[in-house]
Amino acid sequence: MLKNRDISGPEIRWDDFIRTDIALASGPVSRNSALDLHDEDPPNVLPPSAPQRAVVLVGMPGAGKTAIGRRLAARFGLPFRDADTEIESAAGMPITEIFARYGESHFRAGERRVITRLLAGPPLVLATGGGAFADPATRAAIKSSGAVTVWLKCELPTLLRRVAGREHRPMFLNADPAVVLQRLMTTRHPFYAEADLTVTCTDESPEVTTRRVQDAVEGAKPPQRLPVGLGDRAYDVVIGPGLLARAGGLIAPVLPARRVVVVSDASVAAIHLPALRAGLEVAGFHVLAEIAVPPGEGSKAFERLQDVLEQMLGAGLDRRTAVVALGGGVVGDLAGFAAAVAMRGVPFVQVPTTLLAQVDSSVGGKTGVNLRAGKNLAGAFHQPRIVLADTDTLATLPARELRAGYAEVAKHGLLQGPLWDWCETHGAAAVAGDIGALTHAVLESCRLKAAVVAADEREESVEGGRALLNLGHTFGHALEAEAGFDGTLLHGEAVAIGLGLAASISARLGHCSQEWPSRVIAHLTACGLPARIGDLDRRFTVEALMGRMAKDKKNRDGRMRFVLLRGPGDVFTSADVPAEAVTALLWDEGAVG
Amino acid sequence: MLKNRDISGPEIRWDDFIRTDIALASGPVSRNSALDLHDEDPPNVLPPSAPQRAVVLVGMPGAGKTAIGRRLAARFGLPFRDADTEIESAAGMPITEIFARYGESHFRAGERRVITRLLAGPPLVLATGGGAFADPATRAAIKSSGAVTVWLKCELPTLLRRVAGREHRPMFLNADPAVVLQRLMTTRHPFYAEADLTVTCTDESPEVTTRRVQDAVEGAKPPQRLPVGLGDRAYDVVIGPGLLARAGGLIAPVLPARRVVVVSDASVAAIHLPALRAGLEVAGFHVLAEIAVPPGEGSKAFERLQDVLEQMLGAGLDRRTAVVALGGGVVGDLAGFAAAVAMRGVPFVQVPTTLLAQVDSSVGGKTGVNLRAGKNLAGAFHQPRIVLADTDTLATLPARELRAGYAEVAKHGLLQGPLWDWCETHGAAAVAGDIGALTHAVLESCRLKAAVVAADEREESVEGGRALLNLGHTFGHALEAEAGFDGTLLHGEAVAIGLGLAASISARLGHCSQEWPSRVIAHLTACGLPARIGDLDRRFTVEALMGRMAKDKKNRDGRMRFVLLRGPGDVFTSADVPAEAVTALLWDEGAVG
Repeated sequence: MLKNRDISGPEIRWDDFIRTDIALASGPVSRNSALDLHDEDPPNVLPPSAPQRAVVLVGMPGAGKTAIGRRLAARFGLPFRDADTEIESAAGMPITEIFARYGESHFRAGERRVITRLLAGPPLVLATGGGAFADPATRAAIKSSGAVTVWLKCELPTLLRRVAGREHRPMFLNADPAVVLQRLMTTRHPFYAEADLTVTCTDESPEVTTRRVQDAVEGAKPPQRLPVGLGDRAYDVVIGPGLLARAGGLIAPVLPARRVVVVSDASVAAIHLPALRAGLEVAGFHVLAEIAVPPGEGSKAFERLQDVLEQMLGAGLDRRTAVVALGGGVVGDLAGFAAAVAMRGVPFVQVPTTLLAQVDSSVGGKTGVNLRAGKNLAGAFHQPRIVLADTDTLATLPARELRAGYAEVAKHGLLQGPLWDWCETHGAAAVAGDIGALTHAVLESCRLKAAVVAADEREESVEGGRALLNLGHTFGHALEAEAGFDGTLLHGEAVAIGLGLAASISARLGHCSQEWPSRVIAHLTACGLPARIGDLDRRFTVEALMGRMAKDKKNRDGRMRFVLLRGPGDVFTSADVPAEAVTALLWDEGAVG
Repeated sequence: MLKNRDISGPEIRWDDFIRTDIALASGPVSRNSALDLHDEDPPNVLPPSAPQRAVVLVGMPGAGKTAIGRRLAARFGLPFRDADTEIESAAGMPITEIFARYGESHFRAGERRVITRLLAGPPLVLATGGGAFADPATRAAIKSSGAVTVWLKCELPTLLRRVAGREHRPMFLNADPAVVLQRLMTTRHPFYAEADLTVTCTDESPEVTTRRVQDAVEGAKPPQRLPVGLGDRAYDVVIGPGLLARAGGLIAPVLPARRVVVVSDASVAAIHLPALRAGLEVAGFHVLAEIAVPPGEGSKAFERLQDVLEQMLGAGLDRRTAVVALGGGVVGDLAGFAAAVAMRGVPFVQVPTTLLAQVDSSVGGKTGVNLRAGKNLAGAFHQPRIVLADTDTLATLPARELRAGYAEVAKHGLLQGPLWDWCETHGAAAVAGDIGALTHAVLESCRLKAAVVAADEREESVEGGRALLNLGHTFGHALEAEAGFDGTLLHGEAVAIGLGLAASISARLGHCSQEWPSRVIAHLTACGLPARIGDLDRRFTVEALMGRMAKDKKNRDGRMRFVLLRGPGDVFTSADVPAEAVTALLWDEGAVG
């Protein structure tokens, strides 16, 4: 099985195969090491189009990893290596013999060392053996190397045609190749699905497939990953297009088992559940239940929570089953609360599909439902294991919902400072649906929120901290509660008015100039949002709003607390806001007696 | 105001008053320091009856702290000091002048230093000024000194008679002494209530009162305190008699505000709520609501949780209001879960009144309710701030309930080892109501549970850990669920049978000799508990029990996990229990087809 190859430098030998990791530990492999002196290496100067990182091809036997890889390397002007060949060179014996003599786990360990060593050098195209990426430690090593991974995905008939003539291979001895391949596909595809890119390979020519792989690699924009630094509860917010289809591969590394229940709302499920389901199933996830609740704030109710829990537990959820929330803030809050209390806490994944959920509610671990006594009064802090903010889903949002979500972006702008300048310049494009602007809004909002949450996870800071995220919400929650959560006033719309009121009361109390309430109201209005109580058809009484605010969760020992601003980027909590000033403002802004 | 006193050594001077804490920082005060050379000091050898720690008298002006204190010191053969006198000596001016010149906070700081210095020396009797124990830092200093504190509690008429003739004091100038004293009582009594002992003083002679104070100090058995070491969630389990009446003083130091809602069940509330309410109110607690649920497992339901939450929030609970659970395991689990989710978590206090709750459910932070799908399937880990196990409440328990609670003690015996020997010797006395035996059972059970919980708070250990506390519960929960939580089979009774079955399956699988199931069953039977399925009137089918166990929370990836034993003190978790062995055991032990 050993190929005769013309090696112009010292080749990797048996003791390299078994010990390369030790040699590697002392430093990176230089361009002049044994691995770089094969005669097929290109010169040390890469063409400008070459990827700056290694390309690793994974997939089944017969998927064409070597044939495509060699061509791809030529196109990129990169060296090509076949991991199995390198291993056989190093070991001085065929892989079948390594297996027979030393067993699979010994082989996998050596394979991992060789791959790790190859990826530690300069960029190359690497074809891996079919089992390499299915091995958890090797998969982790490949991912952590920073290489871009490409799954060459083939259907069974194609594979069968390709392996015709290889029936002498040990894996097919005395067995039907179709049965063998199908079994391997079932066990390995879930791991291949964790590759960065998937290219479906058909019976087209290798040149055509190679071109498609090249396009995929060149066009690949890896999603942004924002870490939320919460110690042993740390997690990433992943932001980018096409994440639903890759959901299983993205979430598998952070979950204890490939087993989930999905909670969504009927409207979102109709649009996005098929893609999510496919993205989960390709990675071998067992979806125990798909639970759809009615759309709207009405589903954030205790009775609904109970119903969701009974459905989850009835479907066989155990402590290693994750709850996946697919939808907006209502679904995330409800499903997250259910995950927090099911069996006293199971893993949770947020897949926000609204702007509001992507920029705000999916990050930070606040979950809950409403009580008669008020909004979000029952709940839990339960951090997700990962957040997948698929920006493609924003294109499907109704314009009003996009605008409402934007109110939280504007809030983050006021909290952060420079983001407020961005809002005034680009906010209108965002609410008009510009995906670039929306992606920036999601990214910067999550960055701000991650920092605030990491510093004050459970909102325990005496001053400032997480409570600052409540800018505009003291008023907003009161308006929303009075409106009755019936959809006539969306949360984001209430927050927009709340931001205007927060800026106004700040100016009245002398914390900022009148410029700021004017600019805040002007910007929100320009983005199609209500910014004053008088902008709404509905009437609100001063007494009712004051009564609602008296029950705000920020209040301490019976004193109302507000979030006030001195200007964008300079926001603070204050218990020093005279009730008369608030009352007067509400009167002036359109509340009635 | 300065008394002329014959000082045989250098007295504490002004700079001592303002700087004694600095001097103290370098080491304890020796017996030969200035403080110990007053002529009224007794010789350095204390009579054998003297307390080994200082006695600090607190209370209102006119309560008799100096008169009683001086007599008490003589009886104990201890030195007596009056803190105010010491302060005036040190400062060289009357307290009124210190107040006038430097303000109260300056005075309190100096008072704290003088009291701290006095208590750092050998035992003495110390009378404090009326405001000293009401100052948070001074109160904390006195408590941490290890002194026994006694509140001389007087009603207003008595105080008024005593202060008659002191109307020239600045505090009464131009004011009605009754009004002044009443106001002071309202603000200070809540803090005095944190004293270890309360002696009500009437118009009887000082000699009689002193005798009663002496009796109280000599008879005082401070409750046991077991720390549960959970880092920033650490708390104490306080075990002893008479805790309900002292509840407010005991819980105030670990709560953010003196504001609670009490959750109880109707039966327990009828017996114990008045004492708890009085114990809370004397310490100035505002009881926002007293919520009584129906007795029995049926109250561990989602609908009941919602109802309790609505009542709490409706009564004005905020994030600094604590939830106090008064009752057995059902009330503790329900109220604890409500506390965990109300406003995403408020402080929680356990006041267990059943043996089961005192030895098990009140410690460790597991809270929850039952779902249709199974027991405790919705819940939260929410540690209490403190657990008050008032052993007096055990005297009011029905015999059957006491026996049922004892099953968990026997379980702890099997987990711990030496406690099992104690059980075989003293268990019968405990179930017969012997308060000494019961107190030991509570103490040792809590000690074991605290250690297990501290090591594995959220039951995440791969093997062993908190799951070991489930010994007997895999079978027990299945029996209980089949019985329908209708009171025909109490949790502890189900656990007793479960312990017998766990020992039996352990023996059948060769982990222990047949001696252990025989001894376990014999002991539980001797304590009046059912220990075999056949001991119950009701029939259980093998299939139903197996189905229930298949849903156990300990199971992983569909595999049943059991807690098995090799002998007392040698217990382990195992997923290696053949279903056929369990089935055969259930058949043999009395389950039917």
